[in-house]
Amino acid sequence: VSDIKKQLALYLVTDRGLTRGRELAACVLEAVWGGAGMVQLREKDAPAREFAALAARLLELLRPHAIPLIINDRIDIALAVRADGAHIGQSDIPAEEARRLLRRVRPFGKRPILGVSVKNAAEARQAEKDGADYLGAGVIYPTETKTDYQETIGAEGAREIAAAVHIPVVAIGGINKTNIAELAAIPRLAGAALVSAILSADDIRASAQELKSIWDEASCRR
Amino acid sequence: VSDIKKQLALYLVTDRGLTRGRELAACVLEAVWGGAGMVQLREKDAPAREFAALAARLLELLRPHAIPLIINDRIDIALAVRADGAHIGQSDIPAEEARRLLRRVRPFGKRPILGVSVKNAAEARQAEKDGADYLGAGVIYPTETKTDYQETIGAEGAREIAAAVHIPVVAIGGINKTNIAELAAIPRLAGAALVSAILSADDIRASAQELKSIWDEASCRR
Repeated sequence: VSDIKKQLALYLVTDRGLTRGRELAACVLEAVWGGAGMVQLREKDAPAREFAALAARLLELLRPHAIPLIINDRIDIALAVRADGAHIGQSDIPAEEARRLLRRVRPFGKRPILGVSVKNAAEARQAEKDGADYLGAGVIYPTETKTDYQETIGAEGAREIAAAVHIPVVAIGGINKTNIAELAAIPRLAGAALVSAILSADDIRASAQELKSIWDEASCRR
Repeated sequence: VSDIKKQLALYLVTDRGLTRGRELAACVLEAVWGGAGMVQLREKDAPAREFAALAARLLELLRPHAIPLIINDRIDIALAVRADGAHIGQSDIPAEEARRLLRRVRPFGKRPILGVSVKNAAEARQAEKDGADYLGAGVIYPTETKTDYQETIGAEGAREIAAAVHIPVVAIGGINKTNIAELAAIPRLAGAALVSAILSADDIRASAQELKSIWDEASCRR
């Protein structure tokens, strides 16, 4: 957990519906080769068995790269496949419960990672208190991708959340190569989580590389 | 687990959408007063947090009556609220995994109950081998209620499944007071699971009582 901050700089969140027909596992690997340091499997419409099978397949592919795989919402599936952690939103089970359940699994002897979606500083402080290891702050910009929250909080919202807690914060929602530099300039923001800007790109690896290099360049000038 | 067979005679499966605007918890209690011996919380469209809160509320109401509460699909929520067990379908996580995860909770010091939906004898034998405590056999008759399977297996299907395993089997799908006697006549069938025939009735308690008495009368003549 201690070293996830660096891996969060470019965080890929999946959505099979946005790969333009390409196989998700292949797309995820391309994104990792391009610089994504962490992957969240988030497939709201997949039946549990299919979701678990997909998680197991991705774990197999990501473990050799030491890229953590985080499971959205379903703590039971995270436990069943021995994923690296889980990510929950404000309408999923409470973070405290999730933390308690996740204590029961120990992949590679490491403490499982718990991520929590928040939209303001109060939720951020609560999630940190409840045992979150990192936060997803959003929705930053308007986006077509299905998310737990509809209201956008902008770069200013991400700044406030990052300032409110000690754990790493990633911005999420509508981020792409035209606006990622604005976020990278925010003090203490650990990274950006992206879905369509990576998965829907013509060249996924090149897109991830470009996003990562814009992030790295803008964040080192903070 | 050893005494669930009797409680399965009339098994209520929930669907908030079918209560005709009445509060689900109140409807569940009415059904229990009418003779339902076990309750499965199955709310496919509820966000996890709401689903967990509803489960906790029902547990509070059902514990004084010693009526087991079974959680559909979400093993994590069953664990979080310390429910009496979980029920999974063929598109949920595999029964073996569910059994393994459920071993981690011990409500009242009892072994958690695992139910599995099956549609034929082969699935039934596999689920029994994987550690199921009871089976839901269906869909028996055509039904409007959302289920995991669309194909109907009829009373004959229920008969074959009940004959194939040693654990209790309940029939599910389209069962009401006009057809429950046909099922009650099947040797070794433990009970019937119902949704709308109970929850949508004008008088839920009277409806449960009537269904239970038809079941009891027809099953004792086997």
